[in-house]
Parts: sequence; structure tokens; C-alpha cells
Amino acid sequence: MPVPSAGREPLRIALLGCGCVGSQVARLLTEQAAGLSARAGGPLELVGIAVRDRQRPRPAGVDASLLTSDPAELVTRADVDIVVELIGGTEPARSLISAALGAGKSVVTANKALIASDGGALHKAASASGVDLYYEAAVAGAIPLLRALRESLAGDAIRRVLGIVNGTTNFILDQMDSAGAEFGAALARAQELGYAEADPTADVSGADAAAKAAILASLAFHSEITSADVFTEGITSVSAEDITKAKNLGFAIKLLAICERGDEGVSVRVHPSLIPRDHPLAAVHGAYNAVFVEAEAAGPLMFYGAGAGGQPTASAVLGDIVAVARNQRSGVSGPEPLTYAQLPAIPMDEALTRYFVSLNVADQPGVLAPIAESFARRGVSIKIVHQEGHGEDASLIIVTHAARECALAETTAELAAMGAVKAVSSVLRVEGEEGE
Amino acid sequence: MPVPSAGREPLRIALLGCGCVGSQVARLLTEQAAGLSARAGGPLELVGIAVRDRQRPRPAGVDASLLTSDPAELVTRADVDIVVELIGGTEPARSLISAALGAGKSVVTANKALIASDGGALHKAASASGVDLYYEAAVAGAIPLLRALRESLAGDAIRRVLGIVNGTTNFILDQMDSAGAEFGAALARAQELGYAEADPTADVSGADAAAKAAILASLAFHSEITSADVFTEGITSVSAEDITKAKNLGFAIKLLAICERGDEGVSVRVHPSLIPRDHPLAAVHGAYNAVFVEAEAAGPLMFYGAGAGGQPTASAVLGDIVAVARNQRSGVSGPEPLTYAQLPAIPMDEALTRYFVSLNVADQPGVLAPIAESFARRGVSIKIVHQEGHGEDASLIIVTHAARECALAETTAELAAMGAVKAVSSVLRVEGEEGE
Repeated sequence: MPVPSAGREPLRIALLGCGCVGSQVARLLTEQAAGLSARAGGPLELVGIAVRDRQRPRPAGVDASLLTSDPAELVTRADVDIVVELIGGTEPARSLISAALGAGKSVVTANKALIASDGGALHKAASASGVDLYYEAAVAGAIPLLRALRESLAGDAIRRVLGIVNGTTNFILDQMDSAGAEFGAALARAQELGYAEADPTADVSGADAAAKAAILASLAFHSEITSADVFTEGITSVSAEDITKAKNLGFAIKLLAICERGDEGVSVRVHPSLIPRDHPLAAVHGAYNAVFVEAEAAGPLMFYGAGAGGQPTASAVLGDIVAVARNQRSGVSGPEPLTYAQLPAIPMDEALTRYFVSLNVADQPGVLAPIAESFARRGVSIKIVHQEGHGEDASLIIVTHAARECALAETTAELAAMGAVKAVSSVLRVEGEEGE
Repeated sequence: MPVPSAGREPLRIALLGCGCVGSQVARLLTEQAAGLSARAGGPLELVGIAVRDRQRPRPAGVDASLLTSDPAELVTRADVDIVVELIGGTEPARSLISAALGAGKSVVTANKALIASDGGALHKAASASGVDLYYEAAVAGAIPLLRALRESLAGDAIRRVLGIVNGTTNFILDQMDSAGAEFGAALARAQELGYAEADPTADVSGADAAAKAAILASLAFHSEITSADVFTEGITSVSAEDITKAKNLGFAIKLLAICERGDEGVSVRVHPSLIPRDHPLAAVHGAYNAVFVEAEAAGPLMFYGAGAGGQPTASAVLGDIVAVARNQRSGVSGPEPLTYAQLPAIPMDEALTRYFVSLNVADQPGVLAPIAESFARRGVSIKIVHQEGHGEDASLIIVTHAARECALAETTAELAAMGAVKAVSSVLRVEGEEGE
């Protein structure tokens, strides 16, 4: 029988960081107190906010009397039940979260870099203390995706996750696709519109997506996967010509985070990928995020939405706070380590994918035979051969069936040395097709 | 502090119905007992299964000693905590669920027709007893959508829901779009492949989608909306020509369930709709389902997946059982009626949408002026005019800005009577565009 939530002891929240997201979380905790209390099974009370500079002016809705400049004291205070970390970066966030978990506080964070590098250890610490560690906002903003992996799909077996998890690169590739722009022009446009930072390295190199891939793989496969396990290739070498050629064959090019369960372990990688234009991920335009999950019982699922922004992030953090509060009241916090399966990460050389190889060739009879032979010798089976242009501009596009990365690398090295091949102009991977 | 789940009293489950979905739920409750116990905060125990015929052979995994032919006795038994209804239809499902809720049992069901007609009353009964009523499987199979509306988005304000919630009609329209088939041929193909039943009325008339629209609108807007409030138009009159004309203007045609919040209430309707081909819903092919949600803080979200099938449905039912068990243990079951906002349903005449009007016209100078004037007189503003064909085959396609249904109906009546207009060949609505 339910107990009226109003009569319960409040769960007390400490907030670390009061920037764009933190100040919104603080405001919403007060403004939506009644609704949150009903959802959480009892009142939530904000009891402290750690900031670097207590004198700095704060937005309305932030109670100045709660500010402290001593986060280490705050996270272990006896009257704190849940710590919400919104500082970002590795330190001091890692030490503060560890201290909080060690002191028996559940933790909610939006810190993808930290979870991608130290998630395994932090989960173990949470489990040892019997508390929760939630981070919905770390991947794909307000899309309720990690929740679905942890709860709705927890009893299912996940085979593969394909995600567009970086809005900046999706915006750039989408611009290149729709407007025929080159990478540089599309990046400049993204910067102009605020979708890319002045230094876009973390996004265009794939590093941001790699952190999210590590988090997704860890949750989907109950294993400890870190950013270092993720093979990462960015989008800087994708050309307008690649996109046009892919389009002619019915593909779009997306930067995908791919987490795949094989017989020997888990392949986790981030790279530009050709996907069929009728795949649901191909319809993800602009700076949106989407994650496609293939599960045994539930079948294919996709989750789509805004991947960034203060409001969506604050919304995801609040959802986590409610979930953690409910867990605490029901006694299901930290029931078991999330990484019980302990599947190893498979090195990229062993990964099995399909390839799109574009060659500049001499436009003369007989050019295909030695090329086809080179693929065949390494057991790489060809699915599509497509010639574009004539004379000096002739190019041959080959799409293979599934092959090992190492076999493909040997083949392209041999092709590059052939007289009939002027250049291997690009090698990209193909994902998201049935029966690969 | 968490209590080890193994030491807890089990929550006891009664199952009504043991067909395709029921027998899978029974099997999974046993096979996945350990995992479910960890997720639910304590063991779950199946204590009874009500069937019509106890002698009928059952699949492996169904314990024959649990079978009973007296469901009314089972649902009020003192040792039952959660009742799972998988009989379907209105009666006896309604009486049994009412009895269960009245006796203080939480209820999980997949019964969309019943929730769409009696959801309001059943929610009140659940609330009065302080228990839960969950029905994730009633809309869009295993897609964790209702969960997201009830939990992740509970603190957000939802503006609009656009859903492809009937796989049969999506398969038919997709066939018409990709293969240029007429409705009859596409339906025959769907029947051949098992996507449509021998009597496809409930699907092609929009009735199935209307029930789901009522459920979505009730949850999204916290109001009591029933199937009877839903304006419903099926897909039987959509022609291959409509689809081609829509395609030429950059649209796909989908049967959408639309739930929209206006100033005066909620508009809930099911009808064939043109959506831009770059809208995420346009990329939902075959028999898949997807629901697009526009929320204030979270932004636009889309949930995609298989909308039917025994496995996905069983997976959704199990997810609900776990959620209900957690709620019972945390004491947050039935904290408040879900329909507290009580927004009225707006009649279709008052609904504001954009229109696609296709006219067979005499191909002669001056034909556009009186047509444009007819729209203008009723304040219906024209966005696109597009002529196709010449001579006898000329047709004029007009896409309007947002207008009231009644203004549009008056306009088309006037157009039909004009000498220059040979026929109003179709009137369809346009959805899913920004700045309507």
C-alpha cells in the first residue's frame, strides 16, 4: 500500500556546479517541487550548491544561501542523499564523485568524458556502497535512451547499437549531403550557426562520439568498455565527392558510433559510415541525434531527439534525480554491478564490416580483372561494382560483402601499387544493412 | 539504504489469458526469475493463470498446476498483488480489471480497446485504491514510449504527438509509395505476407489507430480522451495518384495519429497525412511504428520500433510488471490520477491544419483566378500552387497554410460547383512542418 508522499522525509540534494545546466536544475527543483515529489515518492530538497566563486551573480531561482565554495565538504555532508555533478571534465569531478559514492550518496552526472574513462570503477564504487550512478544526460541529451537500456531492455539481449551521437558532425555531413558543400565550407557554416565550436577538434575527430560509444557499449553489453577501446576515425577526410558517389549508390554518409556483439567480444568503433538512404538513421538531419538499437525480443528500436542544449540536458538530469529517488525509496539502488558480463573489446583488425572503396582508374578494357582478383585473393567478396565518368576522370566504386579490416587493408595496399589504379581515393565502411 | 532483494517477500502475479503473449510472459517470469528479481527489488512469483479451457495443451514453461478457469476468483485472491490481463476485448476484461483494482491489486494490460474506451474510469479506480494501471504494450509494442511519457517527460510540457501506430496501414502506404501500387494491390500483398488480416477493416478504417491516439492524448495531456473523441479517417480512398502527386511536391503520405494541444483544448485525430519527405516519420517503412513527440524542454523526440508481434508485446508486458513491482516497493503506486488536467477534446471543425487539394481543371488561361479567390474569401491562405499535365489531364494542386477544417470544407464545396473545375479529386491534410 502506498504511503502518501507528502508525509515522507525529504531526500536531500547537493549540486556541484551552477552554470547553464546547473542553474536550471536548481530552479526546476524549486519551481516543480510538487510534481517532482509526486513522481519521486517524496519531497526533494536542494541543500547545497558548490560553486567556484560565491560572489558571482546567479540567475533568479538560485538561492544564494545554499552556495558554498567547498565541494569536498558538501559531497560527504551527513544531510546529503544525492549528489548531482555538473562541473564536467576529469578532475575534480572524479575525486568528488568517488568521495560521494564512498560516503553512500547516489550520484547523477552529465559528465560523458569521466564516465567513458572511469565508468567501470565508479560503478563498482556505487555498487559497493549500494547506491546509484546515473548519467542519462551524458549521451544524446534528453532522449530517454540510457534509461531504456537499463530498464526497459534490461531483460533483453542487445545485438547491435548504431548511433548518431554528435550533433556537430551530423550537421556538417548533412550540409555536405544536401548542399553539396565541401567539409571546410560546411564546418564554417556550422560555426556560424553555433553548432560547432571555434576549435571543433573534439567533434570532428570523433573523440566526443567515442566517449559516448564507450558508455553505450558498456550499458548495452554489461561490460567495461572505455574510450581507449574505441577505434576512432573522424570526418575531416570525407569529401563532397565521397558523398555524391555514396548518394548515387543509394547511401548517405553519417558519423556512427557502432557497438556490436560478436562471438569473441564487443566491437566498438566510431567512423564515417555509408548507410542505406531508407535506413531510419539516414533521415536524421541537422544537429539531431538518434540511436538505433537491435534487440532480440524487442526487435529494432530507434530513439531520436536533440543531443545537446541546456534545457534538454537539465530535463535529463531531473529525470535521473527522480529515478534515483524512487530507487532509494524502493531499496533497489545499486543491486548489482552493471558490468557483470565482462566481454572483451575486439581489436579493429578483427572487426567485420562491409567496405566502399573508390578508385581512380585508367579507363581501358581489362582494368577490372586484376582489381577483382586482388579482392578475391584475400577472401573479400564484392557486392557492387560501379563505374563513374570516362577517360581521365574514370572512377571505379566497389562495395564489398562483410570482410575483416586487416584483409581489406592488405587489398587496398595492393591496389594502390597497381599500374591501372591511379589512386585509392577513399575507403569507407558500410553499416546498417540486413544480411551483412 | 538498499535492502538485499533476495530476502524480500515475493510480489505475486495472476495472469489472465495464456495465448501467444500470455504463455511467453509465463515462461519468461520463470526463466528470467533472477534478473527480474534484481530489477524489481524482490522476487516475482506467478501464482495463477486463468484460461477458458484447462484441458487444452499448453506450451512448455507453463506450469499446469497454476491453471484455473475462474478468473473472477483469481483477481481478488488475497495472495495476489499484480494482475496481468492478456485476454483482450471489452468484456470480461473490463469487469475483471475493475474487480482487481477495487481489491487493491495493480494491473498490467495490453488491451488498447479497453484503455481507449474506459481508461479514465479505470485510472480513477486505480487511484482510489492507491494501485497502478500500466499498459505499455497497448501502443507501439515494445517501444518504451508510454513509459517515457509517464516518467521521463512527466515534468515537461508536450505540445504535439504525431504517431505511425498501425503497422498494417504503414506497410500498405509504403508499398504504394515505393512500388506505385494501388490500394487494393498493396492490401493483397500485405495479406499475403501476414501484415494484414483477412478482414482488414479495423486497420484500414483507422479504428485501431484511433484507440491508440486516444491513449497517447490522455497520457500526453493528462486528460480523459476516448476513442469517441477521435476524428477518424482511414486510408481506403488514398490513390496511387495522390501518392505520386505528393511525392512530386516532396511529401510522403502516412496514416498519422495526431494529438495536438491548442488554446482551447486538445485536437485528436487519425487521418492520411502528407509529411515532408525529410521528416523523420517519412523514413518509417514497412510495418514499423514510430511516435514523434514535441516537448517544451526536451525538444522533439522520436521513438521507433516494431509495433506488434508476440515477443515485443511480451517484452513490454514484462517491463510493466517490473515497473509496477518497483512502484509498490517504493510506495509511489497510484499517487495521483493521470487525468488531472481535464482538457476538453476540440471538435474536428475547429481543428487547424494545412491542406493538400487536388483539382481536375480545364487547361485554359484564367482558371486559377476564381479558384484562388474562393480560398481567399474564407481566409484560407495558399502556400503552393502546382500544375501537372496538360489538356484533358490537367490538374491543379494547392497546398494551403493552416486553416480551419470548416473553412476548407466550404471552399472545396464551392470549387466543386465551378465550371472550370471538373472534379475535386482529393483533399488531404498536411502535417509535420515547422511554422504552420
